[in-house]
Amino acid sequence: MGQYAAPLRDMQFVLNELLDVEAELKGMPRHAELDADTINQVLGEAGKFCEEVLFPLNQSGDQEGCVYEGDGVVKTPTGFKEAYRQYVEAGWPALSCEPEYGGQGLPKFVNNALFEMMNSANQAWTMYPGLSHGAYECLTAHGTPEQQKVYLPKLVAGTWTGTMCLTEPHCGTDLGMLRTKAESYGDGSYSLSGTKIFISSGEHDLAENIVHLVLARLPDAPPGTKGISLFIVPKFIPAPDGEPGQRNAIKCGSIEHKMGIHGNATCVMNLDNAKGWLVGEPNRGLQAMFVMMNAARLGVAMQGLGLTEVAYQNSLAYAKERLQMRSLSGPKAPDKPADPIIVHPDVRRMLLTQKAYAEGARAFSYWAAVQIDRELSHADEAVRKDASDLVALLTPVLKAFLSDNAFECTNHALQVFGGHGYIAEWGMEQYVRDARINMIYEGTNAVQALDLLGRKVLADMGAKLKKFGKLVTEFVEAEGVKPEMQEFVNPLADIGEKVQKLTMEIGMKAMQNPDEVGAAAVPYLRTVGHLVFSYFWARMARIALDKEASGDPFYKSKLATARFYFARLLPETAATIRMARAGAKPLMEIDEALF
Amino acid sequence: MGQYAAPLRDMQFVLNELLDVEAELKGMPRHAELDADTINQVLGEAGKFCEEVLFPLNQSGDQEGCVYEGDGVVKTPTGFKEAYRQYVEAGWPALSCEPEYGGQGLPKFVNNALFEMMNSANQAWTMYPGLSHGAYECLTAHGTPEQQKVYLPKLVAGTWTGTMCLTEPHCGTDLGMLRTKAESYGDGSYSLSGTKIFISSGEHDLAENIVHLVLARLPDAPPGTKGISLFIVPKFIPAPDGEPGQRNAIKCGSIEHKMGIHGNATCVMNLDNAKGWLVGEPNRGLQAMFVMMNAARLGVAMQGLGLTEVAYQNSLAYAKERLQMRSLSGPKAPDKPADPIIVHPDVRRMLLTQKAYAEGARAFSYWAAVQIDRELSHADEAVRKDASDLVALLTPVLKAFLSDNAFECTNHALQVFGGHGYIAEWGMEQYVRDARINMIYEGTNAVQALDLLGRKVLADMGAKLKKFGKLVTEFVEAEGVKPEMQEFVNPLADIGEKVQKLTMEIGMKAMQNPDEVGAAAVPYLRTVGHLVFSYFWARMARIALDKEASGDPFYKSKLATARFYFARLLPETAATIRMARAGAKPLMEIDEALF
Repeated sequence: MGQYAAPLRDMQFVLNELLDVEAELKGMPRHAELDADTINQVLGEAGKFCEEVLFPLNQSGDQEGCVYEGDGVVKTPTGFKEAYRQYVEAGWPALSCEPEYGGQGLPKFVNNALFEMMNSANQAWTMYPGLSHGAYECLTAHGTPEQQKVYLPKLVAGTWTGTMCLTEPHCGTDLGMLRTKAESYGDGSYSLSGTKIFISSGEHDLAENIVHLVLARLPDAPPGTKGISLFIVPKFIPAPDGEPGQRNAIKCGSIEHKMGIHGNATCVMNLDNAKGWLVGEPNRGLQAMFVMMNAARLGVAMQGLGLTEVAYQNSLAYAKERLQMRSLSGPKAPDKPADPIIVHPDVRRMLLTQKAYAEGARAFSYWAAVQIDRELSHADEAVRKDASDLVALLTPVLKAFLSDNAFECTNHALQVFGGHGYIAEWGMEQYVRDARINMIYEGTNAVQALDLLGRKVLADMGAKLKKFGKLVTEFVEAEGVKPEMQEFVNPLADIGEKVQKLTMEIGMKAMQNPDEVGAAAVPYLRTVGHLVFSYFWARMARIALDKEASGDPFYKSKLATARFYFARLLPETAATIRMARAGAKPLMEIDEALF
Repeated sequence: MGQYAAPLRDMQFVLNELLDVEAELKGMPRHAELDADTINQVLGEAGKFCEEVLFPLNQSGDQEGCVYEGDGVVKTPTGFKEAYRQYVEAGWPALSCEPEYGGQGLPKFVNNALFEMMNSANQAWTMYPGLSHGAYECLTAHGTPEQQKVYLPKLVAGTWTGTMCLTEPHCGTDLGMLRTKAESYGDGSYSLSGTKIFISSGEHDLAENIVHLVLARLPDAPPGTKGISLFIVPKFIPAPDGEPGQRNAIKCGSIEHKMGIHGNATCVMNLDNAKGWLVGEPNRGLQAMFVMMNAARLGVAMQGLGLTEVAYQNSLAYAKERLQMRSLSGPKAPDKPADPIIVHPDVRRMLLTQKAYAEGARAFSYWAAVQIDRELSHADEAVRKDASDLVALLTPVLKAFLSDNAFECTNHALQVFGGHGYIAEWGMEQYVRDARINMIYEGTNAVQALDLLGRKVLADMGAKLKKFGKLVTEFVEAEGVKPEMQEFVNPLADIGEKVQKLTMEIGMKAMQNPDEVGAAAVPYLRTVGHLVFSYFWARMARIALDKEASGDPFYKSKLATARFYFARLLPETAATIRMARAGAKPLMEIDEALF
């Protein structure tokens, strides 16, 4: 049931027409020779793999789920293992990894686009290789040369996968409370004991070995987050020949029954004197883990985009086929017993909301991935620094705004199907259930909002925000004088000014009372999300206006979608700004006993 | 897992302090003797039944689901049948039914309050007796005396249950396309053949017999909605002694696998020359069915309220227990390893949103149920007429606004639990899955919005809306001069004026282009929903101010919740008004091929 076609045309529009990545790559010595055609070809092949191999396993994977077979063994749904074999064989895990470890060395944004498609096709499956990328990033940044030599080639080849073991039963957001203990064996290795929960891809039958990155406390560690260290704890301890050796004492105790992502094993992991090796400095584990966490947050954003896209495609197809009622403005398909429901304004609202959020998310997230490539590979240090600041600023927005929108959009898609949307067979309710986790894991969306407002915006007095503001201002100044752009530039300039004013206002209040940050953070993040989307929709409208005369209907569609965005989605900020300004008092004045 | 306590204190506040039902009933001769104490006692007993019998079956019913055992037989989850036996034995089905048929003759609002609690405790189970009420209403209004004599006592006793058989595979919203055929046997009975889908409670093992109310076409029927007739098609044809006789040829062919409400059997019903009897006039079946549909829509509103309340109770308990992070404004539980998460502003936002929506919904829906009692039983014809108009106007708002809010609120409740909210064991994700259907069935929420704006508001040039507006104006005029009420009355007056202006604006545009109605309807309904909630929150604030000095913390809590509503929820209308004003063009200008 259902359908998915990789949206290659729009991906190419974003990469080539909006971001001009070929020109962009000229500024990055290691990628300077790469051309757009090669990238397009790679993405075309990736699209086929997602459409033909991963997508057909999505619904069956949800229905079958993972099975805990006892004694630490987890069986993934039928077909998952074979799909993973093909994924590894085709070299997809290596796409953006370092050639030094067997990688293909392509820019990160190419891998990002691959992950959009993989998530559209099958989010639960994609979480297995997805977490390997986090482990790869973390060990690349913080591993010893020896650790890198042992683990990175296996992660790059995909024969081993990775996990992040953070959460414990009594601590999720508050990692300072974690209790898992690590004691030195005196030979450079450690003995780890404790229980981790909610470990995605924690155990499975896809790969030869699993590389767990585990947060734990050393005996002399200070309390709180300053006493957390990071360890590699492999499922099988690598033998001297580099192949999986002795089984380590980190074992899956059970898997969770969840609302969605049934095809991914969410594991309780028991460590019982498991052998591990320190990654990075003692007591600095959280900083090391944050490399992985930031990669994971961008990964969640791609899950949001992926689900939005596939939900849109399916609800659009249904809306064109399903005949029900006549258009209020007169029959549109008089030869049929009723009109296709796409004639109804509110069905169009639900479809266009998905389209505008999907395409806006693609522009934003691909741009962000290009910023990461700049940060890693650009020749100019000032460019690297700016890119790094923009990525730091906008990572929480990517994670929260895109996952919130995906939940809204998958719900619209379900609603377009009416009663059929609620029936499992049609596949739409799975998208809603899968989308729901993205608002929670890798830091709840409220935690993202606090990170944005507290740490990224107020902590540096708005310096990073000003860097994004500068991009907006430059565009507004260049385009604001052109009559054909005013319908896009005016609301963009307006929301830009409002964000600036709102930020200052909250900053002033927060100096008096830190709870003002918590009270405003969630609607503040949504407001900033719309500022970012307004910027990208205005830029896309500029291109579409330039090329409209070509007669290519793609640009007509883009322009109409931009107009819809400004007319029907941006106005949400009229509410979010008021909510952000309402202050802490209405939330905090009520005594706990009075709830 | 989980908890539910009937919110008797708030129910009594609404019934006695806000609505003063004892005085209200003095105007209804048949209820004039009824006092508040009796009603409170009944509700107290009902609460116990819901807490002790229905609630413990909610999660197990979801996990077990209904089972289709072949040959038309459906088994409900363990315990459902025994709970239904107790429900019948205690006389709950008869609560608000006519004494003539064995009913207890209590006002409808008492039954409405019973259903709030039943839905909190177990929505899937409650749908079995819930549909019986619709069948009862429909036959009371449109059945022949003989039909009433045969069926009503059984429905009132609860030994038989009812269904509504409307939807077919190719038509849900668009009933004009239905194909089920009815041919006269010449003896007053008819032979019905066709297939109905999505029939809630269509088959089960709770009752001796099931009374299906089926829409079908007579051979000479005109096409479309003007050729639909309504029939009673009992599962077992009543024998001359009134007891179930011969098995009729209406059989369940299969049940659906759904996102939620797993404990309720959603059936495909095959009619193969099933025997039926006409209800009401030939070709006027839709009008007869609308009696049932309106009852069902209020029923859905009570499902929304029920889920909002139970989700709130559970997330509140968790927020007081779960320790995670310190308050930004300094430790609140310094003796514990972290503060309970209720100290965090955004957790409070999610809790207070649920509280304000639950209590607002209770005020609104209980008031609406009292209007139904006025409509049925008030001595004064003018009062009956006004009440009838208000019910007609606000039924779509009750259905859509309360079910939308319930989906938002159950999602907040899940989010308060963090990762645990996504795990089935904790029970929160079930509420989200169950709540999702309420936005779809008995007319999708977009259909409700069209009904409100097109049929209820614009079709009579705002006459019904003015009746509600008059209530608002009277309150504003009486209270607006009092300084302590300005924080509530000013925003109420403001949203009242805005709704009036918006209605006129859309009305003008709709005369040019009927698609303007479809484009504006959904955000228009949310705007009106907030006008209604503002009115009830302002009235509740008035009472709380009057009684605050009593020292009863209930009134402090009510006042703080009112302030939260105006500060953080009403501002949604700043967005919805803009969206409603955006017009049809951004939705309709894009050609179908360009989506």
